[in-house]
Amino acid sequence: MKRKVTLKQIARELDVSISTVSKSLRNSPEISEDTKLKVQAFAKLYNYRPNNIALSLKNKKTKTIGIIIPEIVHHFFATVISGIEQVANENGYNVIVCLSNESFDKEVINMEMLATGSTDGFIMSLSKETQQKKDFHHIEEVINQGMPVVMFDRITNDVLCDKVIIDDQRAAYEAVDFLIAKQFKNVALVTTVDYVSVGKLRTDGYVNALRDHDLPVEDDMIVKIEDIENCASKIEKLLLEKKPDAIFAVNELFAVTSIKLATKMGIRVPEDLSVIGFTDGIISQFSSPSITTVSQNGIKMGGRAAQMLIDRLELEEENEQYTTELIETHLVERESTSTL
Amino acid sequence: MKRKVTLKQIARELDVSISTVSKSLRNSPEISEDTKLKVQAFAKLYNYRPNNIALSLKNKKTKTIGIIIPEIVHHFFATVISGIEQVANENGYNVIVCLSNESFDKEVINMEMLATGSTDGFIMSLSKETQQKKDFHHIEEVINQGMPVVMFDRITNDVLCDKVIIDDQRAAYEAVDFLIAKQFKNVALVTTVDYVSVGKLRTDGYVNALRDHDLPVEDDMIVKIEDIENCASKIEKLLLEKKPDAIFAVNELFAVTSIKLATKMGIRVPEDLSVIGFTDGIISQFSSPSITTVSQNGIKMGGRAAQMLIDRLELEEENEQYTTELIETHLVERESTSTL
Repeated sequence: MKRKVTLKQIARELDVSISTVSKSLRNSPEISEDTKLKVQAFAKLYNYRPNNIALSLKNKKTKTIGIIIPEIVHHFFATVISGIEQVANENGYNVIVCLSNESFDKEVINMEMLATGSTDGFIMSLSKETQQKKDFHHIEEVINQGMPVVMFDRITNDVLCDKVIIDDQRAAYEAVDFLIAKQFKNVALVTTVDYVSVGKLRTDGYVNALRDHDLPVEDDMIVKIEDIENCASKIEKLLLEKKPDAIFAVNELFAVTSIKLATKMGIRVPEDLSVIGFTDGIISQFSSPSITTVSQNGIKMGGRAAQMLIDRLELEEENEQYTTELIETHLVERESTSTL
Repeated sequence: MKRKVTLKQIARELDVSISTVSKSLRNSPEISEDTKLKVQAFAKLYNYRPNNIALSLKNKKTKTIGIIIPEIVHHFFATVISGIEQVANENGYNVIVCLSNESFDKEVINMEMLATGSTDGFIMSLSKETQQKKDFHHIEEVINQGMPVVMFDRITNDVLCDKVIIDDQRAAYEAVDFLIAKQFKNVALVTTVDYVSVGKLRTDGYVNALRDHDLPVEDDMIVKIEDIENCASKIEKLLLEKKPDAIFAVNELFAVTSIKLATKMGIRVPEDLSVIGFTDGIISQFSSPSITTVSQNGIKMGGRAAQMLIDRLELEEENEQYTTELIETHLVERESTSTL
């Protein structure tokens, strides 16, 4: 398939903005005759045709928002969708969800499918494979063609668009700070391997909190887990050899697994060991003991993402200023933490 | 908006089958000239036009399956989607998900949105409100217009289409039978109020299992919960006054809540009380103790639904025979049950 020339390519070639190209092609009076002639001639030469995407946007609003997320079994993404639904419905928008299943190709296919007439814009969180490949052409293409994109949680700095994230490092810092304020001196970390970006940021937050309180950062107190199925021996070793009085875990599965292993070894939670998790999902709420956790506020994240997208869709003027919004997190105190 | 005449109305009016109408309008040689003339004249008189739906189906396969489900936070629906995705992808189909949020109107809007060119067919589970209203016109309309529908879990007998369900009554029977075989004589039931159809079926299974083993069915041993937030006092009363040696709970929230309340009252699970839940979600897997449960096999249910839909989409001939497939359940034994 021969690739069509895009608005962006025309803009780059002629050294003008995308909106200038777009307006020239629509023969807007805002643009000088000279520029319009130049753009139109260039577009004709390279056989530029506004495709379905631009057509659907300009001529016929679908009033539909497309969501593309890596997976749905994870409770966090489900809560983000709920947040998007609420704000979308209040504003008269429908929502369509597609899953990438962590695959780059599926993300591209879903995006193209939804872009050809089904949606006005996108809210998305990148697949692992897309993050690894660092190939974002599919996202840039829809943006160039006039469909706004809002990214959340798993984002990239390589694409200019609106974004909604939490401050992972700060959230982790505050959780560890909370434990230190309760007089725990021996706080361990159960985290992911470093290439998982949010895991790395949360690890940094843990390290900074210890340093700021002049507590030692010991490698033996940090357990890095690659695979939840085979993590038992590492956590058991930590509990046995380092006898931490508190654990900060970077997600709720690591937290509940640490609690189960400790309980089996006769270590009582929270009497002998306090545990804080991350992500306020149903495991944290319903496990025994229930788990103190950093709440990521998926509902709020989804709601903000939807509002940012709708604002941009309903803007009269094109606006090339993008914002990255930080959603505040908070600690939900439950049964898995005590005061020494 | 004036309602267009549908294939179904023409068929009813002329007392012929829908496929006869459809074939007549396409001037099929299978239909007699007489019938074709009659149908075509009638269609012209009432200004029948095949709409987007039929057009997209006949002329341009989207190779996309639309899923409409009540909500997504429930782990069961997430697993069904995974099952649908797997089979759909293997067969070269994409999947689009829309949520009804238990609202009839949203279900109708989603269905219309997806039907106009976005999908070839539907896999759906009814919203509570749709079940209450018993209004299924939106579903019948897309079926009449040639888009197949497969229903799963929350189905209705009022619509003729393919369906995938589990045998709720039998699954509950087997769970209670399992407890009785372990010599428990005092098995309580924690269930929903009767108007929830699956709750009612599971209650029937419990009652039948007790009767078949000549055990008494006592009203005081059955707790019917309307609202999970305010169920503590009822379950506490059951544990205190009836001292059951086992509980069968019709979902995983009721199971984990029963375990938490028992533990707080000093009743040990499984030493003093065995508990079986329903739905093999992450709560059952990760709570302490982990919960023995009836697995609903959402992956398999989704996979079968996808296969039934794809088979129908790729059928050359129209087939008005529909099947209802029962997915087998099985018991996953974990820590919350012991032998007396």
